[in-house]
Amino acid sequence: MKALLIVAHGSRRASSNDEVRALTAVVAQRAGDRFDKVDCAFLELADPLIYEGLEALARAGANDITVVPYFLSAGRHVVEDIPAEVAKADIPAGIRVRVSPYVGQAAAAMADLLLAQGQDKA
Amino acid sequence: MKALLIVAHGSRRASSNDEVRALTAVVAQRAGDRFDKVDCAFLELADPLIYEGLEALARAGANDITVVPYFLSAGRHVVEDIPAEVAKADIPAGIRVRVSPYVGQAAAAMADLLLAQGQDKA
Repeated sequence: MKALLIVAHGSRRASSNDEVRALTAVVAQRAGDRFDKVDCAFLELADPLIYEGLEALARAGANDITVVPYFLSAGRHVVEDIPAEVAKADIPAGIRVRVSPYVGQAAAAMADLLLAQGQDKA
Repeated sequence: MKALLIVAHGSRRASSNDEVRALTAVVAQRAGDRFDKVDCAFLELADPLIYEGLEALARAGANDITVVPYFLSAGRHVVEDIPAEVAKADIPAGIRVRVSPYVGQAAAAMADLLLAQGQDKA
């Protein structure tokens, strides 16, 4: 079972965390056969934390878990903190866990997204 | 002349600000006839600041400027701070300035970007 764990920073504003949860539901809807399960977790300030999200996916039967950082730049959070938090998870042997590139690294796709937002007449 | 001003938070890490500048160059390359000029500015911690970026675009001949917030959630920065900084710009009458939706609001496109990053085998 392949799972995607979207990792956001987490905010003191509940509405920002809820935005991540709503986005996670959209990702799950659009995942098709790419991922069997899509969840989210937070680096800090909101639940579940990264290790909790990973352990929950493992308990749910995931044996191939991709962590995708929902971050715009390759700052300390992406480079150091997320890998360190991933390493804290108590995951049974045989379950593959990897961290994918962060969203901001997809420059061409992000550029098109910025252009589309800038053209939005809303 | 239509201009797009990409507004990021700004970071103490020069490399994060340079990432925004590099992304801005990609947006400019991909803008086609949608925008004649694409620049970036920062809410804080990096140059130019928002009012400086807006005034520079006006001096360069832009008469229709769209500010697109490069932010993932509708936090205080997007809801309050960016509009307040935009209002500080000393822009001649007749130049249209508007703030577009932030990138994180484009849930379907962002979901597809997350799925693509999660599938990246790099």
